[in-house]
Amino acid sequence: MAKILKGKPVAEKIGQDIKMEVEHLKKEGISPTLVTVIVGKNEDALSYRKMIEKKGGLFGISVANKEFPEDITEDILTNEIENLNKDKDIHGILIFQPLPRHLDINRIKYKIDPRKDVDGISPINISKIFSGEKDGIPPATSQAVMEILDFYDIPLLGQNITIIGRSLVVGRPLAMLLLHRNATITITHSKTKNLKEISKKADILIAALGRKEAITKDYLSPGQVVIDVGINVVEGKIYGDIRFEDAENIVDAITPVPGGVGSVTTSVLFKHLIKCIKSNSN
Amino acid sequence: MAKILKGKPVAEKIGQDIKMEVEHLKKEGISPTLVTVIVGKNEDALSYRKMIEKKGGLFGISVANKEFPEDITEDILTNEIENLNKDKDIHGILIFQPLPRHLDINRIKYKIDPRKDVDGISPINISKIFSGEKDGIPPATSQAVMEILDFYDIPLLGQNITIIGRSLVVGRPLAMLLLHRNATITITHSKTKNLKEISKKADILIAALGRKEAITKDYLSPGQVVIDVGINVVEGKIYGDIRFEDAENIVDAITPVPGGVGSVTTSVLFKHLIKCIKSNSN
Repeated sequence: MAKILKGKPVAEKIGQDIKMEVEHLKKEGISPTLVTVIVGKNEDALSYRKMIEKKGGLFGISVANKEFPEDITEDILTNEIENLNKDKDIHGILIFQPLPRHLDINRIKYKIDPRKDVDGISPINISKIFSGEKDGIPPATSQAVMEILDFYDIPLLGQNITIIGRSLVVGRPLAMLLLHRNATITITHSKTKNLKEISKKADILIAALGRKEAITKDYLSPGQVVIDVGINVVEGKIYGDIRFEDAENIVDAITPVPGGVGSVTTSVLFKHLIKCIKSNSN
Repeated sequence: MAKILKGKPVAEKIGQDIKMEVEHLKKEGISPTLVTVIVGKNEDALSYRKMIEKKGGLFGISVANKEFPEDITEDILTNEIENLNKDKDIHGILIFQPLPRHLDINRIKYKIDPRKDVDGISPINISKIFSGEKDGIPPATSQAVMEILDFYDIPLLGQNITIIGRSLVVGRPLAMLLLHRNATITITHSKTKNLKEISKKADILIAALGRKEAITKDYLSPGQVVIDVGINVVEGKIYGDIRFEDAENIVDAITPVPGGVGSVTTSVLFKHLIKCIKSNSN
């Protein structure tokens, strides 16, 4: 049976570090504060925000909330973001996506101050992650995968890592993060011809395609470490991108869903918040 | 024997398009102008600039030259770049690298206006290439590879492409350009374990590692298209990263060195200059 790479101890370890940092910062008179931005009615965002508020509370971090009406114009939203950029009591900004259709995140992402960009959407952070600059902030989910791999001491140097999925928040930034750690990276996607064969050959397989249990035993082989980034909600139940029952009988190690990558992501947002505060005070 | 994918006809095709565009622009009263920036004594840069001036002349494009002393401070250089950014008669800026040691390209790259950045070094362009935004400008060499692949109608969709080398000017941006064209991408480098095996399995193999004839027959297999990005000068002679004599007897098609990718890059710089002018006038 595969070793289960649970997210909880990873999140706890990150949480311990954060708490220590928060104590230090508070002694210096800094009260770490994250602001969440929700536009329109977004039930998913509201429940995610609740989780973030709760976690922030555990760390001694304040979470401020900004809610804007569904029909806010891009100019006004941009203005609001610029106000948050300037606000010295706000250290990090998290914009919940997706935004309503008339708002273009590809324009709005230019407006968020990269030094407050806890989820790594600003072009400056994207460029830093691409270039391997240490002060860059990657998207939280991609960093959550790195945290899990490191917590469980999974070697990366020279390893053949296949990523299934090429999204802007996981596949592509994660490829860069792993490349900077000297892994050999294959990025695959819906147009890949021989995905089963490629997946089977990987030392580490990372599924981030967003399709319920699409990765079955035909994609897996013994000895692999398998990371499941998928969070697919079907009839109120959460499924990963990997069929867990197949994987646990074949591979060496696998992250569960729920309780894997997803349970680390929120802690990473706060880790990034601390990183923002520390790099700005240098 | 392998088909030889010469750069010359590719450059000529690009040149024809550029000439037409330049004619149109001149009718509108715009005289396309590129400025080159050389810091200190740099013989390589001077001879490359000569090539650029000559090619610019063929296209009806003016090439202005800026030379600064070896000991220029970063502040003064930055100031000069900002003046070029503001200069309405300058449409593109090309900074020759490497810069003298005391100047940090990783800071200077933030100063160049992304709308004049013909060689794609600005973080905004890096982010656009990463994100697949069409108005982004990639590094010229990575785009030169795309031009060759497209000129010779080499299919990319679903193809397994292995890139050897992960530099900021070729390996990484090229991976993104090819990914946006729906290829499956493997990025390899000096720490890759089983490079021979991985290289052999690729449909398209792109060598951009910068080591004279490092890729021998052991890395190649029949049916492959092989692109050699290497320009290694040894005792006055130019060598590619691939041992041509090995490749021509095994693979389906190969770019020569010299006369391959390198001979397309300069034309791409001017293509980017036109792109800069057109997207700024929109």
